[in-house]
Amino acid sequence: MIRVGIVGGTGYTGIELLRLLVNHPEISLEIITSRGEAGRHVGDLFPSLRRKLELSFSEPNPAALSACDVIFFATPNGFAMTLVPFLLSEGTRVIDLAADFRLKNPDEWQQWYGMPHACPELLAEAVYGLPELNREAIKNARLVANPGCYPTAVTLGFLPLLERDCVWPESLIADAKSGVSGAGRKAAVETSLCEASETVRAYAVAGHRHLPEIRQCLAGASRGPVGLTFVPHLMPMIRGIHATLYARLRKRDLNLQELFETRFRAEPFVDVMPAGSHPETRSVRGANFCRLAWHRPQDGETVIVLSVIDNLGKGAAGQAVQNMNIMFGLDERQGLEQVALLP
Amino acid sequence: MIRVGIVGGTGYTGIELLRLLVNHPEISLEIITSRGEAGRHVGDLFPSLRRKLELSFSEPNPAALSACDVIFFATPNGFAMTLVPFLLSEGTRVIDLAADFRLKNPDEWQQWYGMPHACPELLAEAVYGLPELNREAIKNARLVANPGCYPTAVTLGFLPLLERDCVWPESLIADAKSGVSGAGRKAAVETSLCEASETVRAYAVAGHRHLPEIRQCLAGASRGPVGLTFVPHLMPMIRGIHATLYARLRKRDLNLQELFETRFRAEPFVDVMPAGSHPETRSVRGANFCRLAWHRPQDGETVIVLSVIDNLGKGAAGQAVQNMNIMFGLDERQGLEQVALLP
Amino acid sequence: MIRVGIVGGTGYTGIELLRLLVNHPEISLEIITSRGEAGRHVGDLFPSLRRKLELSFSEPNPAALSACDVIFFATPNGFAMTLVPFLLSEGTRVIDLAADFRLKNPDEWQQWYGMPHACPELLAEAVYGLPELNREAIKNARLVANPGCYPTAVTLGFLPLLERDCVWPESLIADAKSGVSGAGRKAAVETSLCEASETVRAYAVAGHRHLPEIRQCLAGASRGPVGLTFVPHLMPMIRGIHATLYARLRKRDLNLQELFETRFRAEPFVDVMPAGSHPETRSVRGANFCRLAWHRPQDGETVIVLSVIDNLGKGAAGQAVQNMNIMFGLDERQGLEQVALLP
Amino acid sequence: MIRVGIVGGTGYTGIELLRLLVNHPEISLEIITSRGEAGRHVGDLFPSLRRKLELSFSEPNPAALSACDVIFFATPNGFAMTLVPFLLSEGTRVIDLAADFRLKNPDEWQQWYGMPHACPELLAEAVYGLPELNREAIKNARLVANPGCYPTAVTLGFLPLLERDCVWPESLIADAKSGVSGAGRKAAVETSLCEASETVRAYAVAGHRHLPEIRQCLAGASRGPVGLTFVPHLMPMIRGIHATLYARLRKRDLNLQELFETRFRAEPFVDVMPAGSHPETRSVRGANFCRLAWHRPQDGETVIVLSVIDNLGKGAAGQAVQNMNIMFGLDERQGLEQVALLP
Repeated sequence: MIRVGIVGGTGYTGIELLRLLVNHPEISLEIITSRGEAGRHVGDLFPSLRRKLELSFSEPNPAALSACDVIFFATPNGFAMTLVPFLLSEGTRVIDLAADFRLKNPDEWQQWYGMPHACPELLAEAVYGLPELNREAIKNARLVANPGCYPTAVTLGFLPLLERDCVWPESLIADAKSGVSGAGRKAAVETSLCEASETVRAYAVAGHRHLPEIRQCLAGASRGPVGLTFVPHLMPMIRGIHATLYARLRKRDLNLQELFETRFRAEPFVDVMPAGSHPETRSVRGANFCRLAWHRPQDGETVIVLSVIDNLGKGAAGQAVQNMNIMFGLDERQGLEQVALLP
Repeated sequence: MIRVGIVGGTGYTGIELLRLLVNHPEISLEIITSRGEAGRHVGDLFPSLRRKLELSFSEPNPAALSACDVIFFATPNGFAMTLVPFLLSEGTRVIDLAADFRLKNPDEWQQWYGMPHACPELLAEAVYGLPELNREAIKNARLVANPGCYPTAVTLGFLPLLERDCVWPESLIADAKSGVSGAGRKAAVETSLCEASETVRAYAVAGHRHLPEIRQCLAGASRGPVGLTFVPHLMPMIRGIHATLYARLRKRDLNLQELFETRFRAEPFVDVMPAGSHPETRSVRGANFCRLAWHRPQDGETVIVLSVIDNLGKGAAGQAVQNMNIMFGLDERQGLEQVALLP
Repeated sequence: MIRVGIVGGTGYTGIELLRLLVNHPEISLEIITSRGEAGRHVGDLFPSLRRKLELSFSEPNPAALSACDVIFFATPNGFAMTLVPFLLSEGTRVIDLAADFRLKNPDEWQQWYGMPHACPELLAEAVYGLPELNREAIKNARLVANPGCYPTAVTLGFLPLLERDCVWPESLIADAKSGVSGAGRKAAVETSLCEASETVRAYAVAGHRHLPEIRQCLAGASRGPVGLTFVPHLMPMIRGIHATLYARLRKRDLNLQELFETRFRAEPFVDVMPAGSHPETRSVRGANFCRLAWHRPQDGETVIVLSVIDNLGKGAAGQAVQNMNIMFGLDERQGLEQVALLP
Repeated sequence: MIRVGIVGGTGYTGIELLRLLVNHPEISLEIITSRGEAGRHVGDLFPSLRRKLELSFSEPNPAALSACDVIFFATPNGFAMTLVPFLLSEGTRVIDLAADFRLKNPDEWQQWYGMPHACPELLAEAVYGLPELNREAIKNARLVANPGCYPTAVTLGFLPLLERDCVWPESLIADAKSGVSGAGRKAAVETSLCEASETVRAYAVAGHRHLPEIRQCLAGASRGPVGLTFVPHLMPMIRGIHATLYARLRKRDLNLQELFETRFRAEPFVDVMPAGSHPETRSVRGANFCRLAWHRPQDGETVIVLSVIDNLGKGAAGQAVQNMNIMFGLDERQGLEQVALLP
C-alpha cells in the first residue's frame, strides 16, 4: 500500500482528493493536515465523508509527512515550496496541486505570483504533470507540478494542432468558461450564490495567472513562441470548464478528425468525440476526463476546438491521482473509474 | 457473474442504474432496452458513458430478457406488470423501480394510477424493497417493488418513532422538498430551466401518488392506521430530497438520539447525525445514503426529523442495486461505495 | 417631494430600496450612507444603477440625516437604535428594516439579539409595519418597525384563520423555504454558490430570531398565546420565500376561500389565488406582493396555506416603501407597480 | 393613447412585452392573441400578471388587429409574414420580434429559415430596428424588424471599431454566451433544468441562424464584407447574453475609450463602462440596456469587447418597446425605466 498524505485538505481540491482516494485500492491515507481545522474529524467538516473516512485533520508536521511515500499539496500558492525540499531530501515524493512548480522561469513565477520563489533550483527538476505530454518523465519524477485547470483544458485542445504545425501559432485565442469552484472554497462576496448565480462575466482579462502557464505548454508543443489571447469567464455553476479554442489553419486539406483521434488513441482519459459534436461539461462532472470535438464552420480557415473537463477532476485532483498512479507504476485508471454524475 | 438486464434505460433512473452497474464487480450488463432509442449506442445518448459501456439500446424482447438472472424495470408506471409474470415464470427475478408492485391493495392501486392492475395476484408476493424494513424477505424475493423516493425519505425518518410508539400516529406531517429530476427525463414546459429554476412551489397538495405508499409504510411500522399530511415541493436543483417531518411526542422522557442510533446501527446506508445537525441533500448527492437528524425545539412536544436522500440514489437506482445485492447474497455495499459529489 | 435618506445602503435591502426609490415619483433621494464605501459612487458598487442614480455613499452624519423627512435603516441589527432617538427628536420619521423595534418586550429582544436594547422606551411607540394589520397606526407613526421576511409570509398566511378562530392556535407549524439573499450580502463560505446551490437544508431549527416575532404577530391575531413550530430552510436560489403553513381546523363547515378573499379584498398587495392553486415564488420576484392559496387535502381537519413573497420585496424593501407611502399620505401603490420578473 | 396588439403572447418575448407594456403610460393594450390559450385569462397562465392586467388571450383576428395602431409579433419565425401585408395595407404599423424581416436577401432568408418568404417585396422596406444604427429610419417606418438577441449584443460591441476602420474586418470572432430563455418557452428535454443547469456547452457551431443577420449588420457598419466566426453557448441561467468579441487592430495608437464613449454618448440604453471593466449580465437583467467594456491585454494587437444584454430586454421586448417609442414620437425611455433586478 502506498502511504499517502494530503497537506491542506479543507479546500475543494483537498476534498476531491479525499473523495477519490478513499476508494483507491492501492493506497492508505495516513495524514490530512489543516491548520484551521486541526483536531476536527474530516466527516464533521465534510458530511459527505461521514462513514467513509475515519481520520481527523492534523497540524502539518514535516517529520510525519516524510514518513509517507507521497504527499499531495492542496494548499494556497507559495506554501508547498517551503516544505518540498525537506520532503524530497527524505525520499518522499510530491505532487503539488498549487502553482509553485508549474513555471520553469523563476522570474516569471515571481512576476505572476508576487513573491520570490523559495527553491528555484527545483523548477528545472519538477515535471509538469500533464500525462498526455510527459508520461515518461512523470514515471520517475520526485516532484510533479500538477497542471492548472485552464491549462489542462486549453493545452489538450490545441495540442494535436500545434504539434503537427496545422495552425498559425501567433494568434491563438482561448475563450474559457469555468464553474465557481475554480475560485476555491472561501468566504467572498463575489462568489456567493447571490452574486455568482444567474449571471455571466469575464474576469482577469488583462492577465490571468494561468496565461504564462498555458503559453509555456503551447510553446513546448509548438517548438517556438506562441501568441495567445486568454479570456476566462465565470459561469453560474459549481464544476466544469469549457474551453472554446480558435486558431487559423495553415493548410486546407487536413483530416482533423484523424489527427485528434490518432494523437489521443492511447490516452485513457481523453475522449475525442465525433466530428460536429458539442461536448458538455456535465458529461465529465466528477470524472477524470477531457472530452474534445473540433469544428470548421463554413469550411473556412478558422478551426474551433471545444474542450471540456471537470476543473476539480482532470483539472486538479483527478489528474493528481492519475499522476500518482503513473509515478508508482499502478494501472493509470485505478481509483478513477467513476462515471460522471449525469444528471 | 450475475446477468443483468435493464428495461427502459433512457430515463434518469435508467442512466443512474447504468452509472452504478458499469463499475459493479459482480455483474455483467447484458441488455438495455428502449423502444425510442433502439439501435443507438448508449454513449451516444449519454456522453458521460462514452468509453465506459459498449452497449446499444435494443427493443424489449421477453425471451432475451428471460435469459438474464435479474431485470430492472426503469419504465413508466404500468409497463412492468405486463412483462413480470412471464419473467418470473422463466425464473428471472425482477426489481421494479416503478410503482407497479408497491401497493398491496389492487383497488387502491387502480384508484391512484388510473388503470386496472394487470397481475393483482402478484401484489401479495411482491416484497417492498426497503432493506431497512424488509431485508430478510428481500433475500429470497422473486419480485421486489423498489420504493419511491419520497416514501424512502419519509419512512426512514419516522420509522424509529412509530415502531416504538413514541409519537401520536394520527397527525403526522411530511413536508418534502425534491429536486427536479424526480419528475423524470421528459420534455415539459414546467420542468424547463426557465420555469423551474429560481423558484419554489408546492405541487399535488390535494393528493400525490406517493401518499398511499407512504401511508402503507407508516401503518406497517405503527401497526395501525396513520393520519398523514404530505406536501411535496419542487426545488430549483437537479437531485435531492429533503423531508422535514413533524410529529407529536406521546412521552417526554425519551432518549431520541439513542433511539435513532440503535435502530440504524447495523444499517450500512443510514447515517444518524449528531443531535442538532442539519443534513444537506448535497451530502448524499450521487450516493446511496440517507442522513437523518432529529430536533425538539424549545423542548416542546413536537419532534422534527430531517431526512435527506438523493432521489436517484437511495430513492431509486442506488436502492435497487442494494436490493439486488441482498437478493443475490452479495456484500450489500458492492457497487455502492461512491462518495457523494461535494461540492 | 419627500426627502429620503438611507442608512446602510450596501446590503441587499439597501440596493432593493434604491432600485425602487429611483423610480418613485414623489421622493428625492438625498443621502445614502455606508461606512465601508464612503466616497464611492453607487453605480460603481452596483452597476445595475449606473446611469440611474448620481449619488455617492457618504459617512452617516446625524445632522445631515435629520434634514430628511424620512430615514430608512438598512443596517445590521442593533445600529438603528443608536440613532433613532436623535432623529425622532429632530422630527425625522424612521422606517427600520432591521429588527431593532420589532419586539415589544425589551427582555425578549435582548435574549434573541444578544445585547441590551438602547432605547426600550421606544418599543411601545414603534408601529409594526405590516399594513394589512396596522395601516391606521402606520399613517401617523414616527417610527415604523418593518417586519422580517419570514414573519410577513407566515403572518399573512395564518391571519384570516386566527382572526376568525378557525384553527387551534396551540399547534401551528410553519415550514418556510427561503432564497439565499435572506442571509444578506456578505462573505461567507456557507452562502457561496458552491456550498448553497444544488442543495437544500434546514437551519436554526432549535430557534430562529424570527420565531418570537412571528409568535407576537400570531398572538395578536389570535388574541392569545399561540404554539408555533417554525423551521426555516435554505433554498438554492437568490430571492423568494415559500411558507407552507399547517393548522388544525376547529370546525368543518367553513368557506375558506371566502374567508381569505374577504379578509384581503381591499389589500393592494395580497393576492388570494383560486382554491387549489400552488403559488410560485417567481410569480412575485421583484414585486411587492404576497400570493396565497389554501388547501384541505382529503377534506381532513388539516388546513394548509401556501404563502409566497419576495424576501427583498414584500419581505423587506417593498414593504418599507409601502409603509412610507402610507406614512406620507401617498397612493400606497406608488413606486411599487413593477410586475414580477418572470421568467 | 396608442392602441397596441400582441400576436403570440405566450412565449417569453410575449410575456416580457406584457410586463413592460402594462406600466407604459402612453399605450392601451387592446389585444393579445394565442391560438393555444384563446379564452384563458392572461393572469391564469402567467400569475405574475394577476391583478396587473385584465385581458384574455384571443384567437388572432386580422380585422381586430388592424384596429390597433401597432402590432407586435412575438410569434415563431414565418408567421408574421402571413399577416403583415394586410396590416400594413390597413395602416397598422408592425414590429416583428421574429426573424421574418431581418435579412434583406430573400434567398438567404429561405436558406436559413427553410421556407420561401411570403412577401419578399417588403424586405427592402422593413427597417432593421436597432435604434443605435437606424433611429431616423425607424421614426417613419411602417414595418420594423426587431433584431435578434445575439445580433444586438454583437453588433453594438463591434460597431465603433468597424465604423472607424479600427480593426481588420476579415477575422472577427464572437464567442457568445446565452441564458436558456433564448431558446423560448417550450417543452424540450435539452432545455429542462436537469439537462441545462450545472453545465455549459456550445451549440450550432456549424452555423446559427443569427450568423447571416450579424454579418449583415457588421457589413453595413464596415461598408464592406466581413469575416465572422460566431460560436453561441448555452449558459445555466435564465436571462442574459454575454458576447466576448475579438478583433485585430489595424493601428496601435487609438484611444478606444474615447471612441466608444463618443459613439454612444447620446444613446439612452448603451452604457460604456470604464476601461478594464467586466460587465455582468445580471447588471442588465430585466432592463433595456447594453453594457460594454473593451480590453487590450498586454497592449497587443487584439482588442476584446465585452458586451452584455438581457436577451429578453434589449435583445427582444425592451428593444421592441424602444422602437415603438421612436415610431410614435414618444420619449424613447417611456416604459423602459426599470432598474435591473440585482441580486
